[in-house]
Amino acid sequence: MSNPTAAMLVIGDEILSGRTRDANMHHLACALTRHGIDLREVRVVSDDADAITKAVRALSGGFDHVFTSGGIGPTHDDITADNVARAFDRPIGVRDDARAILEAHYERQKTELNEARLRMARIPEGATLIDNPISAAPGFSIENVHVMAGVPAIFEAMVASVLPTLTGGAPMLSQSLEVFRGEGDVAGPLRELAEKHPGLSFGSYPFQRNGAFGAQVVVRGQDAGELDAAMAELNRLFPG
Amino acid sequence: MSNPTAAMLVIGDEILSGRTRDANMHHLACALTRHGIDLREVRVVSDDADAITKAVRALSGGFDHVFTSGGIGPTHDDITADNVARAFDRPIGVRDDARAILEAHYERQKTELNEARLRMARIPEGATLIDNPISAAPGFSIENVHVMAGVPAIFEAMVASVLPTLTGGAPMLSQSLEVFRGEGDVAGPLRELAEKHPGLSFGSYPFQRNGAFGAQVVVRGQDAGELDAAMAELNRLFPG
Repeated sequence: MSNPTAAMLVIGDEILSGRTRDANMHHLACALTRHGIDLREVRVVSDDADAITKAVRALSGGFDHVFTSGGIGPTHDDITADNVARAFDRPIGVRDDARAILEAHYERQKTELNEARLRMARIPEGATLIDNPISAAPGFSIENVHVMAGVPAIFEAMVASVLPTLTGGAPMLSQSLEVFRGEGDVAGPLRELAEKHPGLSFGSYPFQRNGAFGAQVVVRGQDAGELDAAMAELNRLFPG
Repeated sequence: MSNPTAAMLVIGDEILSGRTRDANMHHLACALTRHGIDLREVRVVSDDADAITKAVRALSGGFDHVFTSGGIGPTHDDITADNVARAFDRPIGVRDDARAILEAHYERQKTELNEARLRMARIPEGATLIDNPISAAPGFSIENVHVMAGVPAIFEAMVASVLPTLTGGAPMLSQSLEVFRGEGDVAGPLRELAEKHPGLSFGSYPFQRNGAFGAQVVVRGQDAGELDAAMAELNRLFPG
């Protein structure tokens, strides 16, 4: 049985301009792999209404789950919630439970819940809130789309609270072998091995170390026995 | 006049599984910003023929330039060249000039140019080669798509040789100000400032330092005079 599939949508001009180096993609990729959900595609788009709406529709229709990162803060360029609502033709407005979370948080902080901050309580109709243990303002899940913050610590906390609610498949297992030969010498035998094991995926990643060429061969799959067998063959093909 | 637009396509299972942390996106984002080309979208797809072909077609049709990274090595999972050819309905085969480059390189290295390595000379009909000063195997440009290696050092060298051949617009300028107030207090005045300067883009990025909340406000645009004026107003709104 194949695993559920997922896509990620990263939203933010700051990633595309190079100002900020995205860290959430790598975090989510690792978390999904452990959970048995296959991340199949990532898109990064700018803070542009049409770009967000179009990407949400395309990814939501193409994969079992979509995880978004960024654009849910209080400023004018935080337009993710509105455009996720638009993608599903849902109304959006300040919701009482989200407002109550913010009121309690800012009261503790002795900070005014002004109009800008209240924007963070705008939730599309029918969505479920995602807890934000760090700065209170919630994310939300609507249909198969999970809308989360871009700040890495908050994104990670939200992933940790959403993932246990999703059914995963068999976790993807992987083993690897460093072969101290050029990738071009590894390629032929590796192709034959891959053809013998259609249930596994074989990757080869070249490196250069102390002037010598090598390749790290990574074998991935869900069947531990088949993985062990393939690794034994690999070790025979490329002895230490 | 608006700048040329670009998209990036990162190809590789190893990014989506979390095994490898992509570094090329950030490098390209910075290089394009300096060159005056607007990076509008990035997609990451797996080593899957249909996913690659579909993404190349969509991005090539939607943007002035497309830069791809990954999948042009000698192993069975390196299928980028074939699927870029397929996206443009072009034949692909070993090309004499690419073969000559590989022959010379492997002769210097006293290494056999075997069948696997020769795959790296497969070039779609009508493409222009991109020089690879590190490991010889060339990238190529076809239509508006520039196909480059995934290994960061080679990717960066290829970007450096392609970019000077592309017409850039006015480089995007940026200035920033750290405001030691919560982002929710910055949001209102910032929105008004953004409305007064439609030619500039205003971003706000929250941070927490020594227990205090703050926001880095980044203003970007192509007109140095307007940028200076907006920064002066920003400094008046949020005095040090």
